[in-house]
Amino acid sequence: EFRSLFFELHPYDQAKFFLKLDQPDRMLLYQILSPEEMANVFENIRDDKNRYKSLLEEMHPAFAAKMMEYMYADDAADVLSELTKEKISSYLTIMDAQAAKSISELLDYEQFTAGSIMTTEFVAINANYTVRSTMDLLRKEAPDAETIYYLYVIDEEKHLVGVLSLRDLIVHEDDTLIADIMKKKVYSVSVADDQEEVARKMKDYNFLALPVVDFQHRLVGIITVDDIIDVLDEEASDDYSKLAAVSDVDSYDPNAVSAAKKRLPWLIILLFLGMFTAGLIGQFEETLNKVATLALFIPLIAGMAGNTGTQALAVAVRRIATGEGTSERVWKIILKEAGTGLITGTVCGIVVALTIFIWKQKFFLGLLVGLSILSTLTVATIAGAFVPLVMHRLRIDPAVASGPFITTINDMISILIYFGMATLFMNYLL
Amino acid sequence: EFRSLFFELHPYDQAKFFLKLDQPDRMLLYQILSPEEMANVFENIRDDKNRYKSLLEEMHPAFAAKMMEYMYADDAADVLSELTKEKISSYLTIMDAQAAKSISELLDYEQFTAGSIMTTEFVAINANYTVRSTMDLLRKEAPDAETIYYLYVIDEEKHLVGVLSLRDLIVHEDDTLIADIMKKKVYSVSVADDQEEVARKMKDYNFLALPVVDFQHRLVGIITVDDIIDVLDEEASDDYSKLAAVSDVDSYDPNAVSAAKKRLPWLIILLFLGMFTAGLIGQFEETLNKVATLALFIPLIAGMAGNTGTQALAVAVRRIATGEGTSERVWKIILKEAGTGLITGTVCGIVVALTIFIWKQKFFLGLLVGLSILSTLTVATIAGAFVPLVMHRLRIDPAVASGPFITTINDMISILIYFGMATLFMNYLL
Ligand SMILES: [Mg+2]
Ligand SMILES: [Mg+2]
Ligand SMILES: [Mg+2]
Ligand SMILES: [Mg+2]
Ligand SMILES: [Mg+2]
Ligand SMILES: [Mg+2]
Ligand SMILES: [Mg+2]
Ligand SMILES: [Mg+2]
Ligand SMILES: [Mg+2]
Ligand SMILES: [Mg+2]
Ligand SMILES: [Mg+2]
Ligand SMILES: [Mg+2]
Ligand SMILES: [Mg+2]
Repeated sequence: EFRSLFFELHPYDQAKFFLKLDQPDRMLLYQILSPEEMANVFENIRDDKNRYKSLLEEMHPAFAAKMMEYMYADDAADVLSELTKEKISSYLTIMDAQAAKSISELLDYEQFTAGSIMTTEFVAINANYTVRSTMDLLRKEAPDAETIYYLYVIDEEKHLVGVLSLRDLIVHEDDTLIADIMKKKVYSVSVADDQEEVARKMKDYNFLALPVVDFQHRLVGIITVDDIIDVLDEEASDDYSKLAAVSDVDSYDPNAVSAAKKRLPWLIILLFLGMFTAGLIGQFEETLNKVATLALFIPLIAGMAGNTGTQALAVAVRRIATGEGTSERVWKIILKEAGTGLITGTVCGIVVALTIFIWKQKFFLGLLVGLSILSTLTVATIAGAFVPLVMHRLRIDPAVASGPFITTINDMISILIYFGMATLFMNYLL
Repeated sequence: EFRSLFFELHPYDQAKFFLKLDQPDRMLLYQILSPEEMANVFENIRDDKNRYKSLLEEMHPAFAAKMMEYMYADDAADVLSELTKEKISSYLTIMDAQAAKSISELLDYEQFTAGSIMTTEFVAINANYTVRSTMDLLRKEAPDAETIYYLYVIDEEKHLVGVLSLRDLIVHEDDTLIADIMKKKVYSVSVADDQEEVARKMKDYNFLALPVVDFQHRLVGIITVDDIIDVLDEEASDDYSKLAAVSDVDSYDPNAVSAAKKRLPWLIILLFLGMFTAGLIGQFEETLNKVATLALFIPLIAGMAGNTGTQALAVAVRRIATGEGTSERVWKIILKEAGTGLITGTVCGIVVALTIFIWKQKFFLGLLVGLSILSTLTVATIAGAFVPLVMHRLRIDPAVASGPFITTINDMISILIYFGMATLFMNYLL
């Protein structure tokens, strides 16, 4: 029978199967499965968030509401956050009051904060519990809690006062008091903390879950490691997208038009920046008219400036993302990058000058291109490191200073240096 | 006293503290801490792998060997893998035979495979155990196993036949037979599987650990979620590094020379590719001599080709990394990208042509640049998508086709198209 086959699948595979069905078959499935069973499926379509809305709308509203009651609160909040305010409250009103309350609280937290990714299904106990009474509680809560492997200890005002793992619990005698075995030093995050910081903490300390506290240090939720993996993946893909100047590298494009829509805004901006560069070269048209050979090295010099700038930018963005950016002083980093630019610039400058001597047998042209490479590489490297660091201080996401933007800025800088020097030393070039 | 203060710290903080000490203080710490206590510290310096070697060498060899015995086998193997073959075997010979055997087996697996990241400290039980006998075993193994939250069921030949979680275990009566409650469908990976595939599986299915089997389907190890987070982070940083053409964006550079060393190899290669582009423009020197204005739009056209190519490349690399690249046919993807290139090219071409009409009042120049943008964007987009897809089929890491390489290739393509068309339609431009 279909049901038994379906339930042999892991919920993730159930979700994959469900997403491949066409609409009539999906409607049939809503008949066959209970809201609770459907909740399991729905919790596993996280990778296709853009389908939440249409799927929800094709279900009977009562069925959809019941299903979200059975989902973990964080996942239900994720689904609802794709809808309009009116739609959300229409679902919340037909839901069980308790579930509706948790979900709507989660929806109130700002995007990308710990509050927005936490869930409320955690196991909290009191310090005066024994190992036995805790185990009894666990057996009752096991089906509902998102994890039972960490137990959080709270006082009467719900303040977080201790933690212990199920591993700690099972090795102790039944009569042991929780107060005697719990760890009093609890690592927690605040509801307003940035999700990336939370992820970094989870990675460094190898936790399976982290408790989330409000501003009065009351336990309000937990964040589990599976959700943190998704955060790290999203943040990495976000930085990667911005380095490549695509809006969202991971969302699937069914056709060319939808892909083009995502890339065009960036391209149009870059196009106008490029026109600006053209105008800049236009200022040196007289120089160009005298020595047309100068044009040969425009892509080389601009390209090298772009490349070094992108390297410095990438290093700086990752430093900030991994939390290292805060320890060293900005001027020290800039000084180091200046040194790096000077070294790479000198080496590349010498190589290019020698190549041009040999190829074109023109001493001054080689010298000009070599010096241009030396100075543009130095400036471009500094710019690549400086821009994201400053943006970070100004609390702007440094990854927005994407590769192509830095590249275009460095195009302009390099053109100015190259043609400026060429114009100054024109006599030697003729 | 120092010891009690030190042990109040989480092992990760102990490691951070330890890494900040200077050598004499570290030597003192090796006196104060037991090898077992030091093992806990050492397991937490994963982010500074480059320091494993020197730290190990300053310890007394017997102390170092004892410490590695106490470490989880995967972490000990990680440390040893930084040393020469001779050094490794000298440590293994003074270690406890059992520990030495597990570690040296782990060292034999190829880098980046499941075998190389798994550990051997798992809990395996037989199907004829009861819940009670399993709990008794867990209490004994809890201090040593890396995780006790999944229990793997094996038969007499060590074949993996079932799995259950500690959550499943505690909700059942003491006399229940494991055979009756275990899940017979076990998700596992093979020792030779790529670590990225393992990570993807762990992310999709939200497991806390995955069992690793050998070619006879015998259970040989487990991979825990904390190690998978590190894998995902490394792989993301690797792709990011390659898009930016830096060797390893995450390894810290204490000074400018070490940073320059990592960036120079890429820059030198790109420099010679750039010289090639210069040579290409040189072929059109006559055209340039007649219409110097053509030089103005070189950075614009080359830059736009680079930008679209990088966008298409980034999308393709991520598609492959997230495992989506395999489902769709290559020619279908290329066709879609060609469409995307055609759309973005047409829009950008019209914008640029109109801008040049207005700015320079030159109809044919605008038309030429517009048509060049249209055709380069189309070709560059196809190239950006095609190169990584083909590399993936050839089993080369597609991320190697880094941004700057695609950019330089697209520079050349765009120069050929632009100057080729200019030379052909020279009469209209004069
Ligand atoms: Mg719920
Ligand atoms: Mg959420
Ligand atoms: Mg963020
Ligand atoms: Mg970790
Ligand atoms: Mg969750
Ligand atoms: Mg989840
Ligand atoms: Mg970010
Ligand atoms: Mg060990
Ligand atoms: Mg390893
Ligand atoms: Mg997941
Ligand atoms: Mg491990
Ligand atoms: Mg580990
Ligand atoms: Mg990779």
